[in-house]
Amino acid sequence: MNLKDVLAAKGHRVVTVSAKSSVADAIRAMHAAKVGAVMVPDAEGCPVGIFTERDVVRLYADGDRDFDTLAVEARMTCSVVLGRLSMSVDEALGVMTERRFRHLPVVEEGKLLGVVSIGDLVKVKLNETAQEAQALRAYIAS
Amino acid sequence: MNLKDVLAAKGHRVVTVSAKSSVADAIRAMHAAKVGAVMVPDAEGCPVGIFTERDVVRLYADGDRDFDTLAVEARMTCSVVLGRLSMSVDEALGVMTERRFRHLPVVEEGKLLGVVSIGDLVKVKLNETAQEAQALRAYIAS
Repeated sequence: MNLKDVLAAKGHRVVTVSAKSSVADAIRAMHAAKVGAVMVPDAEGCPVGIFTERDVVRLYADGDRDFDTLAVEARMTCSVVLGRLSMSVDEALGVMTERRFRHLPVVEEGKLLGVVSIGDLVKVKLNETAQEAQALRAYIAS
Repeated sequence: MNLKDVLAAKGHRVVTVSAKSSVADAIRAMHAAKVGAVMVPDAEGCPVGIFTERDVVRLYADGDRDFDTLAVEARMTCSVVLGRLSMSVDEALGVMTERRFRHLPVVEEGKLLGVVSIGDLVKVKLNETAQEAQALRAYIAS
């Protein structure tokens, strides 16, 4: 299984906000879509900007709280790790647990095709593992 | 592998705040410990309260923003799903993906022994799957 399969199953919907949106707008977009991160695809000098729940906590804790006027591009993270359609689920999970992030934008030829979350990948992985184990048990029994 | 093994490997540290703490204090505790959720173990009528990044986004989006005076017990979630030491990693991952949450408090005899996150479980699962596949391949080859 690779990220192409995952996106085919979960869909290609991406929750985006523009770079000039306020942090408050990004939070509302996240909440409305029930996701933990919004993408900022048109940010200058960054293939895909990401703004997450974790950023909201960080900004608030740091006292950086003028969310209505603060532009999301000023506080987002530029994703340095991009997924590709051919990337395997294991590879994606490996890089996410190692680098400690939970949302991986999938990009081909500069185009943002979707986002996979650690939860999406775990769901696929659990199914895959169960099927593999069954196949191997059947092989051994035969 | 079960949750006892996971906690033995990752440690039993739990980031807690008291029920009367403010939401602002809970956010600062979350940020300082670099975790996505804090536990509220002494909340009335609730085995373990949980307050997460997602709650911060929800409160802000709903305009419920007086974080300095709002008590965390008034806005936390009471965990209805508790992990046990004997629960398998697969079972825990299954319930987390199905019910869509990312932190599972592990409780035995009313005592909070630790918290496992979806990231902790994925890490264990990837190791376990790799080892199992290797053992089965060795068995088939022999």
